Amino acid sequence: MRVEIWSDIACPWCYVGKARFEKALAAFPHRDEVEVVHRSFELDPGRAKDDVQPVITMLTGKYGMSEAQAEAGEDNLGAQAAAEGLPYRTRGRDHGSTFDMHRLLHLAREQGRQTELLDLLYRANFAEERSVYNDDERLVELAGAAGLDADAARRVLADPEAYADGVRADEREAAELGATGVPFFVLDRTYGVSGAQPAEVFARALRQAWGERPTPKPVGGGSGAADGQDGGEACGPDGCAVPRH
Amino acid sequence: MRVEIWSDIACPWCYVGKARFEKALAAFPHRDEVEVVHRSFELDPGRAKDDVQPVITMLTGKYGMSEAQAEAGEDNLGAQAAAEGLPYRTRGRDHGSTFDMHRLLHLAREQGRQTELLDLLYRANFAEERSVYNDDERLVELAGAAGLDADAARRVLADPEAYADGVRADEREAAELGATGVPFFVLDRTYGVSGAQPAEVFARALRQAWGERPTPKPVGGGSGAADGQDGGEACGPDGCAVPRH
Repeated sequence: MRVEIWSDIACPWCYVGKARFEKALAAFPHRDEVEVVHRSFELDPGRAKDDVQPVITMLTGKYGMSEAQAEAGEDNLGAQAAAEGLPYRTRGRDHGSTFDMHRLLHLAREQGRQTELLDLLYRANFAEERSVYNDDERLVELAGAAGLDADAARRVLADPEAYADGVRADEREAAELGATGVPFFVLDRTYGVSGAQPAEVFARALRQAWGERPTPKPVGGGSGAADGQDGGEACGPDGCAVPRH
Repeated sequence: MRVEIWSDIACPWCYVGKARFEKALAAFPHRDEVEVVHRSFELDPGRAKDDVQPVITMLTGKYGMSEAQAEAGEDNLGAQAAAEGLPYRTRGRDHGSTFDMHRLLHLAREQGRQTELLDLLYRANFAEERSVYNDDERLVELAGAAGLDADAARRVLADPEAYADGVRADEREAAELGATGVPFFVLDRTYGVSGAQPAEVFARALRQAWGERPTPKPVGGGSGAADGQDGGEACGPDGCAVPRH
């Protein structure tokens, strides 16, 4: 079974939701047969790389909140994170473009290090003092810590088109699936879970999707199930079919 | 969209079928949004690593063919391969265990080099004089040529349990999907294509599966489609939902 998770590094609910999902997954009996893929979603896709500002300033400017409202929101999110055992700095965090981080997450997927890198990016963004925005060397450091080749990470960051199509394809797919916000979880393309739901909801979704894994319908000659005898040109335990023409 | 292909390195129809599928994929307008995953299937899972014999000997011994029948079968397969532009030695090939090659293909998947390694393994098995069986250094060489880290490949080969569970999980899943032979193609878990069908059949399967990509059903609170307003604890273009408790 495959679980795809659309999220953004700058999204507090994605940080919290990942922990809640992982709690459910750890208790799921078929966890070893579940593959998790992280997909890209930018909450602020138009932001330029060098346009970095404090989160509170962004919240008051972009959404017209008062400073007190913005701070109360951060306090609330910090409490939710803490409830999952996640560190969260409610003051002094930055906001900026996450496009380069998503490009690195695509490189990391190819190298089997995606969830490791995402964890480190979340941790750096939500809990550490040094900003992750507009700082290539910081990202190279985090990529290295996640087990990626540092030179490969540096090359990706130096070329703004590297993996850019992959990021955009993920975002297009999110739109096609009807997701306008994140986190958004899709199980075997059959069930969707929207938002940082409680772990029990993820547990239920895992059970339902597992129980209803789809059976592929056959296309072309044969029975759909391959066999060496009548399923077309195939090899099976009884040898390879001889061409019929 | 995701296409999973169950196959064995020792399966001539898998070698031919991969080429036919790739012809269809190259002409498919949404090819950049198609991810291909190669899954493990052993035609001869009980064979010991050091039990290597000529293909013709295996065919006469295991399936009770006459030598002339076995040779005619190989000639036929060679002609089918040639029709796809693939080299094929109809005499002098070996047969043996492919378990270690499947373990390496799992490593290669993690490193984003799976299709490259599979192509080289097919080529080595079907077209080159030196045997690929029971020869770790030959496999390390091929892994290196496919862009894998040679030391990582050597470590996997030295540890018979490395990725063994992954190989077995693929094989269990093939059985659950009803496949008793290969190649077996599954598109988005919705459509199945059995055997080395003509490229037109793959083209049709790609179109059908693309046109009927499933829409995930929602689990838990919210609408299934995530949004910042009423889809639960999510962040969207209008900010992050404030906790309701």
